[in-house]
Amino acid sequence: MNQNKLVFSIKDLALLWQSTVGIEKESLRVTENNQIALTDHPRDWGDRSFHPYLQTDFSESQIELITPPESNSKDILNWLQALHQITYLRLNESDYVERLWPNSMPPSLDHLNKVRPAQLLNSQERHYREYLTDKYGKDVQLLSGIHYNFQINPQLMEQKLKESITTNSESDYIKSKNELYMAFMRKYLYYRWGLTYLLAASPYVDSRYQTKLHGKPHQTVMRSVRQSRYGYKNDDAVTISYQSLEAYIKSLESHVKSGRLLLEKELYRDVRMRGSHSVRDLLKEGISYLEFRNFDLNPFAPCGISQEDLDFIKIWIIALLMIDKDFSDQDLELADQRNQSTAEDHPLSNLRHADLLQSLLETLSSIGLELDRLNATSYYSELVQDKLIQINHPERTRAGFLYNKTPDYTSYQQFMSDIAQLNQKEFLHSPYLLHGFEDLELSTQDLCKKAIQLGLNVDWIDPKDQLLRLTYQDHHEFVRNANMTRFDSQVSYFIMDNKLATKKVLKEQGIFVPEGQIFDQQAQAKAYYPQVKSKPIVIKPKNTNYGIGITIFNQAYSEADYREAISEAFKYDQEILVENYIEGTEIRFYLLNHKFLAACERQPAQIYGDGIHTIDELIDLENQNPLRGKDHRAPMTLLEKGKLEKITLKEQGLDFSSIPQSGQKVYLRRNSNVSSGGIAIDRTDAIHQSYIDYAIQASRALEANFCGVDMIIRDYHHQPKQEGDYAIIEANYNPMASLHLFPGKGKSHDLSLHTLYFLFPELKA
Amino acid sequence: MNQNKLVFSIKDLALLWQSTVGIEKESLRVTENNQIALTDHPRDWGDRSFHPYLQTDFSESQIELITPPESNSKDILNWLQALHQITYLRLNESDYVERLWPNSMPPSLDHLNKVRPAQLLNSQERHYREYLTDKYGKDVQLLSGIHYNFQINPQLMEQKLKESITTNSESDYIKSKNELYMAFMRKYLYYRWGLTYLLAASPYVDSRYQTKLHGKPHQTVMRSVRQSRYGYKNDDAVTISYQSLEAYIKSLESHVKSGRLLLEKELYRDVRMRGSHSVRDLLKEGISYLEFRNFDLNPFAPCGISQEDLDFIKIWIIALLMIDKDFSDQDLELADQRNQSTAEDHPLSNLRHADLLQSLLETLSSIGLELDRLNATSYYSELVQDKLIQINHPERTRAGFLYNKTPDYTSYQQFMSDIAQLNQKEFLHSPYLLHGFEDLELSTQDLCKKAIQLGLNVDWIDPKDQLLRLTYQDHHEFVRNANMTRFDSQVSYFIMDNKLATKKVLKEQGIFVPEGQIFDQQAQAKAYYPQVKSKPIVIKPKNTNYGIGITIFNQAYSEADYREAISEAFKYDQEILVENYIEGTEIRFYLLNHKFLAACERQPAQIYGDGIHTIDELIDLENQNPLRGKDHRAPMTLLEKGKLEKITLKEQGLDFSSIPQSGQKVYLRRNSNVSSGGIAIDRTDAIHQSYIDYAIQASRALEANFCGVDMIIRDYHHQPKQEGDYAIIEANYNPMASLHLFPGKGKSHDLSLHTLYFLFPELKA
Repeated sequence: MNQNKLVFSIKDLALLWQSTVGIEKESLRVTENNQIALTDHPRDWGDRSFHPYLQTDFSESQIELITPPESNSKDILNWLQALHQITYLRLNESDYVERLWPNSMPPSLDHLNKVRPAQLLNSQERHYREYLTDKYGKDVQLLSGIHYNFQINPQLMEQKLKESITTNSESDYIKSKNELYMAFMRKYLYYRWGLTYLLAASPYVDSRYQTKLHGKPHQTVMRSVRQSRYGYKNDDAVTISYQSLEAYIKSLESHVKSGRLLLEKELYRDVRMRGSHSVRDLLKEGISYLEFRNFDLNPFAPCGISQEDLDFIKIWIIALLMIDKDFSDQDLELADQRNQSTAEDHPLSNLRHADLLQSLLETLSSIGLELDRLNATSYYSELVQDKLIQINHPERTRAGFLYNKTPDYTSYQQFMSDIAQLNQKEFLHSPYLLHGFEDLELSTQDLCKKAIQLGLNVDWIDPKDQLLRLTYQDHHEFVRNANMTRFDSQVSYFIMDNKLATKKVLKEQGIFVPEGQIFDQQAQAKAYYPQVKSKPIVIKPKNTNYGIGITIFNQAYSEADYREAISEAFKYDQEILVENYIEGTEIRFYLLNHKFLAACERQPAQIYGDGIHTIDELIDLENQNPLRGKDHRAPMTLLEKGKLEKITLKEQGLDFSSIPQSGQKVYLRRNSNVSSGGIAIDRTDAIHQSYIDYAIQASRALEANFCGVDMIIRDYHHQPKQEGDYAIIEANYNPMASLHLFPGKGKSHDLSLHTLYFLFPELKA
Repeated sequence: MNQNKLVFSIKDLALLWQSTVGIEKESLRVTENNQIALTDHPRDWGDRSFHPYLQTDFSESQIELITPPESNSKDILNWLQALHQITYLRLNESDYVERLWPNSMPPSLDHLNKVRPAQLLNSQERHYREYLTDKYGKDVQLLSGIHYNFQINPQLMEQKLKESITTNSESDYIKSKNELYMAFMRKYLYYRWGLTYLLAASPYVDSRYQTKLHGKPHQTVMRSVRQSRYGYKNDDAVTISYQSLEAYIKSLESHVKSGRLLLEKELYRDVRMRGSHSVRDLLKEGISYLEFRNFDLNPFAPCGISQEDLDFIKIWIIALLMIDKDFSDQDLELADQRNQSTAEDHPLSNLRHADLLQSLLETLSSIGLELDRLNATSYYSELVQDKLIQINHPERTRAGFLYNKTPDYTSYQQFMSDIAQLNQKEFLHSPYLLHGFEDLELSTQDLCKKAIQLGLNVDWIDPKDQLLRLTYQDHHEFVRNANMTRFDSQVSYFIMDNKLATKKVLKEQGIFVPEGQIFDQQAQAKAYYPQVKSKPIVIKPKNTNYGIGITIFNQAYSEADYREAISEAFKYDQEILVENYIEGTEIRFYLLNHKFLAACERQPAQIYGDGIHTIDELIDLENQNPLRGKDHRAPMTLLEKGKLEKITLKEQGLDFSSIPQSGQKVYLRRNSNVSSGGIAIDRTDAIHQSYIDYAIQASRALEANFCGVDMIIRDYHHQPKQEGDYAIIEANYNPMASLHLFPGKGKSHDLSLHTLYFLFPELKA
């Protein structure tokens, strides 16, 4: 094997950049008074000992947030935001108030003796934790940090290894991969003091803090207490070789054998190899990824790490993968010392080996330039440039900046407390959204939030398509738009999409549907006017959703208005329906597996006059309502000023410049779709059972599992007496759970939980 | 009850026109020599005694074609065309040649004594048939005619009855409905001689023809032998009252009691009431529709009745429903005599009661005008106008016209024989189509054809959407595009529709897919050029079908071409893929329920040079191929001359004005979709099993029931040795069975039958 072949070059960058990163972020829960929180409230997550995203860590007071591996830093940050929001929602349920401490070092140690080890572990694990407490002390177990997991893009890895090994043997492949990862690890360890200089941010700690091995810190301020000798470190006798995987294993096993370490995992180093249960198995199974543990929480980032941090570290790593250098165990011992002194230096002290960092950052710089070329941006170069400046400006490093802002422990404590409070406010804002995933439709956001809470694995197959996969153990389910699953068929989707087919199928069942006429010719549809001119009618495209292209005439209308509405409908389909309009309340029923879960009344887009503003202005005012937004990303939709609004106003003798009287209700649309500005009012408990039965009968006839049935009902409190007392006007395969999750008025119904329990009945057990 | 209320008016026309009509058409099978066909070949249909569309009637030599009720005459005619085609296909299988005799009266009676009664009936039925033969003779059982079933639009019926009855009682409702139908029946019987004058068309019969009751016809030519006393008539003593349903039942029951009739159904009249098993039950259950039996086959219409006939009769019926007149049993006796003399008159003789018909046709005329207003046409008025002229022009009536064309029996026989031959040719033309339903996609046409053959009920839910329902006994299945059913899920549809999701899911399974990059920004996609410039690539929209927006670069290409292809792909989606191009043969696998049914090679649109014509001209020439058509309505698709063709030609150093050498193969596209002009070659038996296994694995991973897997394979005869030897490029939820049903070259595979047996496993039993 040619060692040089295992160095990457700039032409690999596009594929190298697709390497994945996963973040594990530890946090201490604190009370409003910045005391370590002690209740076992968040243990619910821990009950599922394999919760993929949220775990209780060393102590019950510590929470670990774990993102799945992603290649894009924005995706990682989105995950961190979502996990933080979900954590904060749990920490602030009912009369409960807790926050996450934004620093790697714990706040006041007043409660230290009350902190309990996490109760979720099995007895063997619990004994091991007690052993660790005895050996290293309780204090170090409260340290929090960021673990940055990095896996080289397997496709590129395979390509590289194919170039360097000539045999076709699987074991040669694994050997080479292990060597590549070991060389990478050596480089990482050699240079990591540079990261400490730039990114460390834990300068202070409570004066009572101490470790069993080194006692109390010898000074009150430094770049990083966590990365100093006062962090979570093994005793100095635990020396490890990095020259090869075999040497590594040998040295580690000897420490376990001698009793210096109880278990392999007692080894605390800034890099861990991942891929198998025991390190020896790595020889057979291969290193899958590396875990870098040398990152303090960034207190300036609400999630403890910023997108810039994520990208900078990735560029750093890629630079290392491109550097053709190797290091001996002596070099790495020196590097360890450099890292310790960098961590223990005063935050404003100068960098000791500026030239070394300078030369590395220049490699990063060229990578940044190439990334900017690929993405048509300047962001990556600027990111590296900023760090280059810090080489000679310790006050601009993270620790230096923090120290200048908080030159003593008191101001630091206050500042951290302020940040914790700000973060809390931020993460509790707009609780109906899933933070980080605001681009998804509201109902998908809610479903994901509940899925994460329940401990399901959420895999974004294609978020732009609202398409995801949920997994629990060996069971997976694809879900689109929060309600399209394998439990609804293609053909039932097409039947519901087609109003003609829907009506045909329902009518056969004896369910009332509006009588009407279908047209595929505009001329014919327009010639039909004399047949309907005295009747209230609805004009709609055959296949449509969200009320698009639909006009309702329930008052006198001219032939010109009629013709305009026909033209409008034909814009959206080659066939349109002219149907009798049924007078009554429009009710949406939400059914799952032919069970009724919720109903709401839907009212068309409307405003109330104030005697001062024009309708045009009143629309603008209402659109400032923070609950109104675009495209299913908010509980309600922005009001529009289109053609259909104009026709509707005209029917009421109004136009956009009219000034309605104070309290006067003005309709902007006749159709009640929330997506065209309508409002939803929960009516789940008020609907007479007979209508619920019709809705269920309809969902059965349409063979629909997730189904939204739209019914016009003359009097929903009482059962119908004759034809015309109700009619089903359409059924929806994508029934917008958000109507019931976040109705404009009335009770909310947690449909997402119903959905998840339907898809994963085993969760109920 | 107010009798007048039960008369309809012109304002009811729109709803009245939606009343349904069903046609039953009897035909005699004849040999090439115009002898009655005697083999029992078509008995297969009879084996399913409830075949909804095709039945063997009185004799084994007679076939009955039955359309479902439809409100639109075009739909009825489409059904008749389809049933005729299916009948002709069966009558001309392998070395077999038979035709359908186009006249109501049988051809040569040479074989009369060999004709057997249909064998499908139970023994009781068989004995009844023997009784009939004894009583009426064998000859009359060979008469064929059209039965026209008419049901008043139930919605309108309900509306009318509600206006006239004040109680809410169901029995009052049925009583009124029965009275309405009885009054309608009286009017029909009173005026039916008018229809005989206009539409009769059975002037001759073999000189050996005779009936038991009246012997041989007293003259050799008349308007309608079938409707004369020599047709299938009861003896004169069988008198029936039509004054009320009760009176009707009483008179009929008395004839059965006295033994004049063996069973109620032995009553032969030109109108039958339908709705219950015995006539007495009609009192409880109500008349559902009327069956009019007084129509001779129209020999000028390939289906025995033309669309004009269907519409004219419907206008006639509606006119009767609007006429406020009533008739006594004496009136009807007179009308019977009028009808008999009209039938027995010479085809060129004058109409006896011209004024009566004139006044009725004027009512028809006003209905025609209103229909034309509603439909923006002049067709209906002209239809009535044509009949008005015939009042004084017997030579323009159907019988008169036929007599003038064939003034003697020999020329008549020859003419009928010529027509039978022409019809045969017409119905055997384009056997891959389902006649009457050529607007459907080819694969839907084929599925329906096979479904009808198997005796399934076919219900067009929405033919424009290729959406139908198949029913066998109590079991129904919706099908769209011939392969979308309840056995495929919505979410699997969306996954396959999304190339990114498809790749993600397949890759996780260890199936090779082309590596690539996804872009949502044009600038970024275009900046990617340096990464790919030396490699063959495919550029495609994320969600697309039929090769739309796809460009393949497998030879050197400029940055400008690359950029143009990127722009093209972005026209069809907000995200596009740039993938490695895999060299090899493109194979489409058709899988059903994870079983492999067929595979074909797909080659891109191509032409061969002749050294004379330009590429532009060669495309025009190839497009004259009758197998090429538009939009999935033909086995192959028309070649295009678009942007992508231009780019592809340019890659080969050509443009549309180039003249390729004789035999030179010129590609017009790089993608192989049949829908963009490509051709399919069957490879079902040639593919190595390993690829079939990958395809099955893919359909399982995608949870797809009906699935078309597209694979590029370097050498499909042998198993793959390494990555790049094959890749799955996409999977299709709507896999175009027509590729395998009608491949450009090679064996055809009857996927429709597989589909039907999958949907209805009980059919196999």
